[in-house]
Amino acid sequence: MNQAGVGPVATTGPVRVVGTGLLGTSVGMGLVRCGVEVLLADPSRTAVALARDVGAGRPAGPDDPEPVLVVVAAPPDVTAEVVVAELAAHPTAVVTDVASIKGDVLARLRASGADLRRYVGSHPMAGRERTGPAAALPDLFLGRPWVIVDPGDADPAAVLAVRNLAVDLGAVPVSMDADAHDQAVALVSHVPQLAATLVAARLRDAAPEALELAGQGLRDVTRLAASDPSLWTSILAANSAAVRTVLVALRDDLDVVLTALAAADAVTGPETIATGALSDLASTLVAGNDGVERVPGKHGGRQRRYAEVCVLVPDTPGSLAALLTQVGEVGVNLEDLVIEHAAGRPVGIANVSVLPEAAGRLTAELGARGWTVVQ
Amino acid sequence: MNQAGVGPVATTGPVRVVGTGLLGTSVGMGLVRCGVEVLLADPSRTAVALARDVGAGRPAGPDDPEPVLVVVAAPPDVTAEVVVAELAAHPTAVVTDVASIKGDVLARLRASGADLRRYVGSHPMAGRERTGPAAALPDLFLGRPWVIVDPGDADPAAVLAVRNLAVDLGAVPVSMDADAHDQAVALVSHVPQLAATLVAARLRDAAPEALELAGQGLRDVTRLAASDPSLWTSILAANSAAVRTVLVALRDDLDVVLTALAAADAVTGPETIATGALSDLASTLVAGNDGVERVPGKHGGRQRRYAEVCVLVPDTPGSLAALLTQVGEVGVNLEDLVIEHAAGRPVGIANVSVLPEAAGRLTAELGARGWTVVQ
Repeated sequence: MNQAGVGPVATTGPVRVVGTGLLGTSVGMGLVRCGVEVLLADPSRTAVALARDVGAGRPAGPDDPEPVLVVVAAPPDVTAEVVVAELAAHPTAVVTDVASIKGDVLARLRASGADLRRYVGSHPMAGRERTGPAAALPDLFLGRPWVIVDPGDADPAAVLAVRNLAVDLGAVPVSMDADAHDQAVALVSHVPQLAATLVAARLRDAAPEALELAGQGLRDVTRLAASDPSLWTSILAANSAAVRTVLVALRDDLDVVLTALAAADAVTGPETIATGALSDLASTLVAGNDGVERVPGKHGGRQRRYAEVCVLVPDTPGSLAALLTQVGEVGVNLEDLVIEHAAGRPVGIANVSVLPEAAGRLTAELGARGWTVVQ
Repeated sequence: MNQAGVGPVATTGPVRVVGTGLLGTSVGMGLVRCGVEVLLADPSRTAVALARDVGAGRPAGPDDPEPVLVVVAAPPDVTAEVVVAELAAHPTAVVTDVASIKGDVLARLRASGADLRRYVGSHPMAGRERTGPAAALPDLFLGRPWVIVDPGDADPAAVLAVRNLAVDLGAVPVSMDADAHDQAVALVSHVPQLAATLVAARLRDAAPEALELAGQGLRDVTRLAASDPSLWTSILAANSAAVRTVLVALRDDLDVVLTALAAADAVTGPETIATGALSDLASTLVAGNDGVERVPGKHGGRQRRYAEVCVLVPDTPGSLAALLTQVGEVGVNLEDLVIEHAAGRPVGIANVSVLPEAAGRLTAELGARGWTVVQ
């Protein structure tokens, strides 16, 4: 059975994993659990040993059998040269990489003159704020999109081998070309990362009393800013064209906002602000409403309109569990849960998202059991 | 006892609440629960009736006794004129407002020539994405900062009355001057709101296949973009100077990023990118690391270094509750909980934050009970 428990394992080993960071180690762990033989390689002996210790396979050695599949999980800026080396070293193996940009890797591969019949690009859309083999999870890819980029000259068997790898690891394969992929990740990943960074950078010299006023909104917007600067410098540089396109459009919108604010600022006292300025500001805010509405929710597709049941939860051991146990007893499935809390707050609010048809009953049942609910 | 359960109620009624939206209704509900008489007024009769129905007080009438305290909870752009009218109509009452900007309101009040000995500004740092009396909570202010702005000419008794109101509602009073307040909220609230809007606005015309690659990071960065455009146009216009200062600095950083990306973009193939460009990009990412590190966590102060125990949770009713029940049984207090999930994913990862000294034991206990944990 594969990770998702839906069928037999299609991948045959040995699979060679080159680069035992978060992604490479997670691939190894997932394959080992499927019963596939995994050989691990990394410039760092410590990283290989750690990956072995968490069950991702065994260190590759000179007497190993030839791999059937090579997964290159190196930093994006060295991915192409590692792929070229692996294609040469293992002349019968299919080679894929998991770099988060695809066009730059492909351009470098073409420039190298390598024969690309055995190469297919991958980008599993899975990651964590933590990095390295110790943060790896065999289930990291479960239910996540796994983008497969066929450069056009790959053998169908090579494409199939990579698709099998994705499915065996529980991921959802998605075929895209390299440009469409790079534009998509610029929009849904790289620019959001930069926005979080730019907002957080403004806090570096903020007065402590200003930071005391921070709430959940600031925490959400800036969370990604904790990401690894070296990795992200490499990702952003490799996807510079697509990221710039989105960022330039964002800066144009920012300039509209700045112009509107300057018009508002020029007015003191109760006079009326030029109508155009405020309507431009309002239009930008409405565009944001429209955009966020398109972000997929938990189970993919367009955001479902869940009903939110908001419950006060005392900050004591077991109280959130008690709440969720009672939600379960009522027979209602929890679709999402967001805990709100702010500086010094002795209680939190649990925002429990459920199907709209279940919200009324849940509210009544929780109220009857003594919870403070506001629907 | 007040909301926080720590002492007697200091506020004496009647308290007149003008504006029965989310904040005004929440103030009324909290005071009624303290046993204080509350009189409700709003240009909308429906809003007053709704506020009454949720227990926020009774509609103000011509035969009511004079209020001791007036709380103006009107939109920010009309707050000053309502405060002036209330000062005139109730010549012995202390008047406060809860507008989220303070300098603009104060400037308008001074321009009106009103006697400000009975006026003190407030800004309770509490809010929700939902608005209106139906979303109000008597505990909305519990543990939240409540900024108190003494314009300098207020009677000490007036300042004390507003501080008592904050404490009776369970909030934590914080004294600031109007400028410091407005700069602080520009940084921790208004600019993050705009950043969320600007990123979300880019998604309006995105290809559906691009949005399918979205994960939790995009959801977090853009969540605030769902806020009410009319309210936010009014807030941003009223705090235009402070917001512009932060936004201009953010745009300068954005231009550094764009310049760095242009330098990276000019290089094709395996040549080396100009060192300066990438180091500027990396410096911006490091500045973001530094800034996000200063965002306060759950219990205020600097972010605590909680240990995160990450557990796979099947998407079935009761499984998250079962996990949290077992966390409670182990006797470990849950400090924070973030659920990660992405499109199509049949399970989620619960990131359970606990005190570092408890993480090892929790990991062992959960592992022994059959949960998949990666520490």
